Formats: sequence, structure tokens, C-alpha cells
Amino acid sequence: MKKKTIAVDMDGVLADIEAHLIEYYNEANGTTLTRESIQGLSEEDAFVERDLLRGILNKENFFRNLPVMDDAVESLRQLQENFEIFIVSAATEFPVSLAEKIFWLEEHFPFIKWENIILCGSKRIINTDFMIDDHPKNLDHCMGKPIMFTAFHNVNKTHHLRVNNWKEVVAVLNETLN
Amino acid sequence: MKKKTIAVDMDGVLADIEAHLIEYYNEANGTTLTRESIQGLSEEDAFVERDLLRGILNKENFFRNLPVMDDAVESLRQLQENFEIFIVSAATEFPVSLAEKIFWLEEHFPFIKWENIILCGSKRIINTDFMIDDHPKNLDHCMGKPIMFTAFHNVNKTHHLRVNNWKEVVAVLNETLN
Repeated sequence: MKKKTIAVDMDGVLADIEAHLIEYYNEANGTTLTRESIQGLSEEDAFVERDLLRGILNKENFFRNLPVMDDAVESLRQLQENFEIFIVSAATEFPVSLAEKIFWLEEHFPFIKWENIILCGSKRIINTDFMIDDHPKNLDHCMGKPIMFTAFHNVNKTHHLRVNNWKEVVAVLNETLN
Repeated sequence: MKKKTIAVDMDGVLADIEAHLIEYYNEANGTTLTRESIQGLSEEDAFVERDLLRGILNKENFFRNLPVMDDAVESLRQLQENFEIFIVSAATEFPVSLAEKIFWLEEHFPFIKWENIILCGSKRIINTDFMIDDHPKNLDHCMGKPIMFTAFHNVNKTHHLRVNNWKEVVAVLNETLN
């Protein structure tokens, strides 16, 4: 039987972008944001200096050095047995990030082939059976079943199935096999 | 009414990769391929030294400097009035090409926003109403209506609607509006 497909987001789902972003932003802006202080804020309200934020996201090696989210490697490897995994990352806004994201995936997820990596803008024309993302804007119009991965900016959103970590992702998806 | 969507390939469709590839390949390999001599051959039979080919496609500035296909700019601009255009390029195999493709599009097609650019591997999960591509392998399983743009390697394929140039693309697509 043809495996069902999953679109997996990178930043905030496979890559732990939050701590890095806070650190770079504080350093550049003299602020004292913490993971706790931005809980429940929108990205715009958490990082109010938008140009500064864009500068950070365009910096060389920012994306290349992001830490991997807990349990993500083992979970994807496990899910790959029963699902076809596509990595789908909104990245074309930041050209410097593009090659870095490929190299980051090659390093941490060598079992994901280039054929299954998609660097896009809007995710509106992506058609997979499941989509795992931290951004409601990507999930709201997705063609498959949306799964919202917890991030500071979505903790108050309740209109999608929520998962808090990779162990929960695996449990939710394996449940669909029964 | 919501505009219908078109996925537009880059190499061989928006970008005239053929002449450039032949030139680089001949120079590196001492061969005398011409546009005429490779007509009807598969890519594998036209460019038999696969590692050499991969080296060319991984070279800095190869994709950045490709010429634009005749009438492509004006045609996309016109089509954009009635369709939503997504650029969908298989590119993740060649990380160097990724940022170059964005900059190339910014230069020649500034009216295409980053949100509508997708750099992918397989195009199997792309869901648009139309797909314009020179590779039958991308068109064979596409979810929308396939439109095959003529290239040396597909001249003997007959199982998709063929267009030979951008004027024919516009005619075929405008016809669907009636």
C-alpha cells in the first residue's frame, strides 16, 4: 500500500529556533527577552524590531547552527517506516538560509533524501496527508490533516490538533495506522 | 473568483539551460555537442559523463547567468492577470543553485514574490491546476493538467499536451478561461 505523506516544517518543529533567536535578538537590541517572557505573544509582539529580526534571519550560519529539537531524529526515522516524509520549510524569503537548510538536514537527518526536501514560500499548494507546523497560518488552509507543534506564539490557539513534542507526534501519527 | 494556479518550471522553461549546458560540457569534456546533435536523446544519452554534468550544475554562477527563454517575462506577466503563478523548480539536489535561482528570478521576474517560489526535489506533492514542465517524469504524476514544454530530450514524447514556446503557453492557458 502506498504510504501516507507527511509535510514536516523545519523552524520550530525540527530545529529549535526559539532560543537562538532570543539570544541573537537580545544581543543586537539590548533587550532581555526569555522563553518565558514571550510565551503567548505573536511573533510581531515578541520581536518588535522587524528589520532587526530580518537581519538576524539573513545572517550567514544562523540556520546552519540551529540545535535539533529533542527526539526529532529518532522520531522521523521511526515514522519513515510507515509514512513518506517531506520536509517543507518556508525559506525563499531568506536566500542565505536555503543551502544552509540543506546542509543542516544532511548533517542531522541523512536519511532524508534531497527529493523529499521542499524550500518554499507559501505552503498553499503543498498536498500531503498530514502537515506538522507551528504556524497556524500554514495549517489553516493545508490540504491534509493539520497538526500544530507547540511554540511560544501558538500556545493560545486551539483550532488545530496540538502536539507538544516529538513523542506526541509519533503517537498521534501511529494512531492513524490502526 | 479564485484564480487557477500554475506551477512553472525554471530550467528548460523559464531559463534557457540547453545552450549553456552544451557549452560548459563541451569545454570540460572536449566534445562537440550541438543543439541539433542531441535532439531526441535522453539527458543521460546526451550528457554521458554524469559526474562531469553534476559538477557543472554545482558550479557557482551556472544558474545565476542563464539566459531567459524568449517571451517568458512578458508571458508570465500577462498570465498573472488571470492565474496565480508559482515557480516550482527541482533544485535541492544542487545547494549552490538555490540562492542563485532566487536572485535570478528577482532580476528577471521581479513581479513574482518569494511566497510563490518553490525549490523542491520531487514535484509529487505539488498541487496546482496546471503544471508546465519539460520533464515528463514531473508531468506524469502531477495533480493538475500537465503541459509539456519542448526540450531536446522530450521531442519524441507524445503523451502530454505539447507547447513549443511561450506564445503557445499563453494561447493554451487563455483558452481555458473561455
